[in-house]
Amino acid sequence: MTGVQQEGDDQSVSLHLLKQKMADFAKERNWDQFHSPRNLLLAMVGEVGELSEIFQWKGEVPKGLPDWKEDEKVHLGEELSDVLLYLVRLSDICGIDLGKAALRKVELNAIKYRASKNYGTNDDSTAEMCG
Amino acid sequence: MTGVQQEGDDQSVSLHLLKQKMADFAKERNWDQFHSPRNLLLAMVGEVGELSEIFQWKGEVPKGLPDWKEDEKVHLGEELSDVLLYLVRLSDICGIDLGKAALRKVELNAIKYRASKNYGTNDDSTAEMCG
Amino acid sequence: MTGVQQEGDDQSVSLHLLKQKMADFAKERNWDQFHSPRNLLLAMVGEVGELSEIFQWKGEVPKGLPDWKEDEKVHLGEELSDVLLYLVRLSDICGIDLGKAALRKVELNAIKYRASKNYGTNDDSTAEMCG
Amino acid sequence: MTGVQQEGDDQSVSLHLLKQKMADFAKERNWDQFHSPRNLLLAMVGEVGELSEIFQWKGEVPKGLPDWKEDEKVHLGEELSDVLLYLVRLSDICGIDLGKAALRKVELNAIKYRASKNYGTNDDSTAEMCG
Repeated sequence: MTGVQQEGDDQSVSLHLLKQKMADFAKERNWDQFHSPRNLLLAMVGEVGELSEIFQWKGEVPKGLPDWKEDEKVHLGEELSDVLLYLVRLSDICGIDLGKAALRKVELNAIKYRASKNYGTNDDSTAEMCG
Repeated sequence: MTGVQQEGDDQSVSLHLLKQKMADFAKERNWDQFHSPRNLLLAMVGEVGELSEIFQWKGEVPKGLPDWKEDEKVHLGEELSDVLLYLVRLSDICGIDLGKAALRKVELNAIKYRASKNYGTNDDSTAEMCG
Repeated sequence: MTGVQQEGDDQSVSLHLLKQKMADFAKERNWDQFHSPRNLLLAMVGEVGELSEIFQWKGEVPKGLPDWKEDEKVHLGEELSDVLLYLVRLSDICGIDLGKAALRKVELNAIKYRASKNYGTNDDSTAEMCG
Repeated sequence: MTGVQQEGDDQSVSLHLLKQKMADFAKERNWDQFHSPRNLLLAMVGEVGELSEIFQWKGEVPKGLPDWKEDEKVHLGEELSDVLLYLVRLSDICGIDLGKAALRKVELNAIKYRASKNYGTNDDSTAEMCG
């Protein structure tokens, strides 16, 4: 990485950038009035539902989705994005720094599930992992 | 922004960084075997449930959560993060570049909901917004 | 109640009847092959999403939905039903007697949350109620 | 069926009975004040999350859950019930006759997906089934 962030460069899409875009988007459309915490939460649940619909009749699908058509993958990317965008907006409206919180949660998980433990062989430990 | 990314610097927490951290985390614990698309999706739905529980008996809450105690906000940050981390991991396992997809979706939304329209006054347009 | 059950009589719509109807419906359409536990669960999550979409931009709404148009209520009834029908089908496919389980759960809740306690005035007890 | 409804008799557990039990339960605990439509909806989403957690790391599971331990099945029955009980309560608070709506929805589905059609062989028709 060069240190120069360009929009559209994958490695540089930050939560801060998305937060700013969502805030601008809402402001330009006079939608701040609708963006209360619980409205946004329910909107996110709606998008989680749309994401689930993509997977609902497929049975288990392998990593990388090798058998999916290109337009199915594009659709999937849109639904994943919808969940993300409402999650980012919900965090912003709640006054939560999502990026900071996520880094902290990764560290908490690292303490909770130490890498030295023998995971993947014990039903009990895996049943609660990342819980 | 200086162009120097430091972890913990809010503005620099990128989806790419979180993706990498989740991948390393899973690998170190031998959890890749559990991280199939539908397993991760259901894990994310589980976290959306925990996030909803925080808001469930509160009635509507104002922006910024002025009356919430500090530990409630910390808990909220953790649940928002859990949803984000599984979403990032799910996208990675599906081979979707989430950052790129999200920027594209913002642009699609901008075309779908033009800023020049008079939103916020019409039930029909707002009912479907960001849909 | 006369003891004679007639379909369409509100008081007589049993979980057993709905289970039977869903089983017949799937069989007649050769859909049993798709009705695996996790397929049905994700289908139900999809319907929960559609239900949430109905409420997402409304802010808090009063009991009885006095200001909703008739067609909105009909739509709401359909989405509530979709969640119910998949829930009934999921239970059946998992071999769970949902009616029996629900009556048992009501009894467990009655033990957990004794009626004599002074609820409704204490944040802590209500925060976890029905949990 | 004899026409005599007894509580605990599987075939007789009606939505009406559960609605009544939930109404009594809330009244006895002074919880009506918390049972607004969106509070109940979010509580239901929380229970859907707990239900999903049961299935999240299991990969696909066969019908009837032949390999599950008895206590896992009991737990599953409890989470299925929690979703049902909040769904019943939400419907009641919204003034929706859930049993009637569900029977109507089954009929609408029967019209939408005619049994004579050759389902189960066409991706497009099954992708949207019960939608």
